[in-house]
Amino acid sequence: MTPTHIVSIYDEELKYLTRRISEMGGTAEQMVGDSVRALVNTDTALAQKVISEDVILDNAERQINEKAIITIAKRQPMAADLREIMGAIRIAAELERVGDLGKNNAKRVIAIQSLGMPRALARGLEHLAELALTQLKEVLDVYATRDTDKAKEIRERDDEIDAIFTSLFRELLTYMMEDPRNITPCTHLLFCAKNIERIGDHATNIAETIYYMATGTPPEGERPKDDHTTSVGAE
Amino acid sequence: MTPTHIVSIYDEELKYLTRRISEMGGTAEQMVGDSVRALVNTDTALAQKVISEDVILDNAERQINEKAIITIAKRQPMAADLREIMGAIRIAAELERVGDLGKNNAKRVIAIQSLGMPRALARGLEHLAELALTQLKEVLDVYATRDTDKAKEIRERDDEIDAIFTSLFRELLTYMMEDPRNITPCTHLLFCAKNIERIGDHATNIAETIYYMATGTPPEGERPKDDHTTSVGAE
Repeated sequence: MTPTHIVSIYDEELKYLTRRISEMGGTAEQMVGDSVRALVNTDTALAQKVISEDVILDNAERQINEKAIITIAKRQPMAADLREIMGAIRIAAELERVGDLGKNNAKRVIAIQSLGMPRALARGLEHLAELALTQLKEVLDVYATRDTDKAKEIRERDDEIDAIFTSLFRELLTYMMEDPRNITPCTHLLFCAKNIERIGDHATNIAETIYYMATGTPPEGERPKDDHTTSVGAE
Repeated sequence: MTPTHIVSIYDEELKYLTRRISEMGGTAEQMVGDSVRALVNTDTALAQKVISEDVILDNAERQINEKAIITIAKRQPMAADLREIMGAIRIAAELERVGDLGKNNAKRVIAIQSLGMPRALARGLEHLAELALTQLKEVLDVYATRDTDKAKEIRERDDEIDAIFTSLFRELLTYMMEDPRNITPCTHLLFCAKNIERIGDHATNIAETIYYMATGTPPEGERPKDDHTTSVGAE
């Protein structure tokens, strides 16, 4: 076996990780999009599909971890290659959590079915989900291209999602105050909106990881991770 | 430099990781305990202290990651030692998230200050937090002892937290329905309770990681990660 041969098997292993991460990303995107459609249309069959798909991401994460650890043990990679593998583990964990959040939203569809969701709320949720899905889609593109400028740009855009989330949060509180019958379904919608906001956070975490993988240093400047709703009612 | 000498430096590096993880665990425990006390007594000064401490865990996680990656690159560990280092990275990430959740609860103290929290709710939150803190404390003990039976036991105990969380969730909804003025503060308390429930989840994740570190296989049997409140209102 020549060294070239070893390197080429090693490249295959790195390519396997990249391919599996991209697949996980595709599944996560699909699950999040479907969960929001299920929510907005109170489509329990679609919700059930999302719930059943979560196991795909759980298995993929486990397989990526196993492959990553075996690759480290066998190939003993240094510097950039080691960062590549550690990054794959980290991104797989983020995508697995995105799937969990999509599943959690899907599970709430049955509970909020009775609401007959007001159009304004549905639109707000859709808008929030569109932004989060755009973040997720673009960050997966950046994973393929390793465009660090773009990774930084995505990281800075998290504020927009927070602003929409805060306005939706206030809108939901208003509905709850108007009619006590709205309280239970709107509580579920609050958690759904929070889940979508967290999906945006995971996309931003992935952008940071890609930046680190490519450069060896974390991106500069603090990113406030909390949303702005923690102080609603205090002003 | 003799091989013995190399091994001893390597042991020092593993010990460094173990020590830093234990320190992170201590800080996370303290933050969670303080955040609940701040919440129950609407103590904004204590809340501010928790918020300011979050950076300690952020920095510790970054330093553990850096040390872990350097150790892998330099020492090229196999099997158990590699799992030990990968586990440290994973546990550091879980503890950093526990700190985030404590901080998020602390940030809500100011918003709910106006409520004058009903005793029954405070007691429910305290009970939930006690259970989550016990999980966290015991899992950190297991990290020191590597007692895999105990790790399995902790993992199975997550159900108790879910049951308390569900009953608190229902109680909060009742308060909101009784008086619209309770809606905003109780919404914050809902998120606080959810955060504490998630702290229990992180403790359980750490238990699973310790089991894997010690045995090389994940613990058997599915663990349902969602709480049981997603269907409240659907029955």
